[in-house]
Amino acid sequence: MSSMENGAEVPAPAARAPKTPERAHPVTLRDVAEAAGVSTATVSLVVNKKKAARIAEETRRRVQDAIRTLGYRPNAMAKTLVSGTSRFIGLVADGVATTPFAGQIIHGAQDEAWKHGYALLIANTEGNGELEQDAIQMMLEYKVRGILYSTWFHRQTDIPAPLREAGFVLVNCFSNEPGTRAVVPDEVQGGRSATEILLGHGHRKIAFINATIPAPAKDGRLQGYREALEKAGVPFDPELVLEAYPDQEGGYGATSDLLTRGVSAVFCYNDRMAMGLYDGLREHGLSIPDDMAVVGFDNQEVIAAHLRPPLSTVSLPHYELGAAGVRMLLGLDGAPGTATDGVARINCPAVERTSVRAQAHA
Amino acid sequence: MSSMENGAEVPAPAARAPKTPERAHPVTLRDVAEAAGVSTATVSLVVNKKKAARIAEETRRRVQDAIRTLGYRPNAMAKTLVSGTSRFIGLVADGVATTPFAGQIIHGAQDEAWKHGYALLIANTEGNGELEQDAIQMMLEYKVRGILYSTWFHRQTDIPAPLREAGFVLVNCFSNEPGTRAVVPDEVQGGRSATEILLGHGHRKIAFINATIPAPAKDGRLQGYREALEKAGVPFDPELVLEAYPDQEGGYGATSDLLTRGVSAVFCYNDRMAMGLYDGLREHGLSIPDDMAVVGFDNQEVIAAHLRPPLSTVSLPHYELGAAGVRMLLGLDGAPGTATDGVARINCPAVERTSVRAQAHA
Repeated sequence: MSSMENGAEVPAPAARAPKTPERAHPVTLRDVAEAAGVSTATVSLVVNKKKAARIAEETRRRVQDAIRTLGYRPNAMAKTLVSGTSRFIGLVADGVATTPFAGQIIHGAQDEAWKHGYALLIANTEGNGELEQDAIQMMLEYKVRGILYSTWFHRQTDIPAPLREAGFVLVNCFSNEPGTRAVVPDEVQGGRSATEILLGHGHRKIAFINATIPAPAKDGRLQGYREALEKAGVPFDPELVLEAYPDQEGGYGATSDLLTRGVSAVFCYNDRMAMGLYDGLREHGLSIPDDMAVVGFDNQEVIAAHLRPPLSTVSLPHYELGAAGVRMLLGLDGAPGTATDGVARINCPAVERTSVRAQAHA
Repeated sequence: MSSMENGAEVPAPAARAPKTPERAHPVTLRDVAEAAGVSTATVSLVVNKKKAARIAEETRRRVQDAIRTLGYRPNAMAKTLVSGTSRFIGLVADGVATTPFAGQIIHGAQDEAWKHGYALLIANTEGNGELEQDAIQMMLEYKVRGILYSTWFHRQTDIPAPLREAGFVLVNCFSNEPGTRAVVPDEVQGGRSATEILLGHGHRKIAFINATIPAPAKDGRLQGYREALEKAGVPFDPELVLEAYPDQEGGYGATSDLLTRGVSAVFCYNDRMAMGLYDGLREHGLSIPDDMAVVGFDNQEVIAAHLRPPLSTVSLPHYELGAAGVRMLLGLDGAPGTATDGVARINCPAVERTSVRAQAHA
């Protein structure tokens, strides 16, 4: 009987049990044995449902009554020893403390893991390599079913040596070793979708402020921008691609340069950059979306929906990355269509708000 | 030998082991026994350092050599069964996916737990009560040393019944049951510090935009505001206390009302509110800090340092809440001075940026 099956027997919050002493001694096998007047070995046989064991029906019933009366909880660790693997999936994450992205991966992975009867054993490394090694060792000692190795931003990664001792899936990162299983966002499709929001409103002169920092997102979003333009019959103009540091200060600093390009719309590499650009455009007395349509990328919590005007953007699917990683690890059918290279690319959906308006007779 | 003591033996990232097959079969007790030419029982006795067991010194050495050569990793679960509790501390958290706050609690708790040889078993509930009950049951089955029960915003909480079966500490929340151990931010001191930033720059007519939603933060920060004014000899004027929904839209919406009060400075309940107020003030053609000095609360990642101008604020000590919670759970001396009510209040440090300027001849 797993903890999840027990869930329904737990009293609802409104009907909670009367106060019991804090740190109440947990009920042991021995307590059950005493209450039932049998040996601990007999209790163990009943708990582990050893059918072969010859136990009188009356004794078995007495033990089961004592278990119910005392609220005995069998030891998950003991069951793990018998079965060889635990009901744990390990999740190594960085950036949990500094971005909501890692938290969304955790949330998606946990929901999916629980669905299949697994609990997540999460280690937050914040980029500390030594802690990462220790965390993976610990997961191996606890006999995890497998490990998700995740990064808060999409990047290439080395595979830490101890990770190879378990089944593993890379989440939001990938290896250059062929065939390594990974789940990543589809940056090219995301860049295409962002650009298509602007094209769809009649814009034709569209700038792209890309990041200065090399990353799969940098190459992928640029490719998507080019593909969308090409599909719409708009010639690609390298003069319309700018670069800036991917945060608010970078976006703000790019304002003047952007305004020399004669565009009616801009696709920013991320929402933070768009937030800074908002400030820059306002200082130039320009309004969004009338003077400049703006699209971001990330759909970042706390920012995107709360800028003025609220920002049209493309969502990074962190929740889905975590969930898909678990499905891939467990070899489930629901896993996303995996390309032959072992890498699944997850769709980045467009989120339209009000920072884009139709271009009048473009 | 714990995983943490093993840490130093793991090759550094730069010197990683050559590629080994993925999902390599973990080395078992049986592998060691075969390599050493002894029984698995003998290996077990050596691994568990049973001094009383009569094993020839030469046999012991042979087993130890085989362990080293094969890289055998003892089973943490088995050790737990022997010792009765695991090296786990449970952490129940909500809001991991939607705010960076929960992630900072996790980060602080994990750093402190690892320091003392514990790993965190983290469950993210996102406010799902059923999942929370299941998560606590699971932690109990894995024989955690104790459980930290945390909320992403500071509030009163009920104690879920199964939590009482373990030692527990509430983190960023508290119970109305006397004596329940809890670690919370010192909202009164925080409100005082925020107001003192403005008083320190010569401001005397200072508004406070409080939250509409009842919360310990609402009462505490108001009390701190009043205490700071009183200490500075500035009479409290209830007309200068406004209320708004604690997000960007709330702060923006409060702008006109604020401007009728004839103040030179404003303390906003949180940074999100201050972000919206920035937009409102700019639309009125007012500049920060010259026309209005602004202070926030939370020091929220992604926002506070990146507004224009960067926001002076007070930091919510989520990292420290998590770390202090672990120390309190383990009964360590380093735990913060706990009041007689079992509740430790953690300091909220002021963070000064450039949204406040001296009031000229106030």
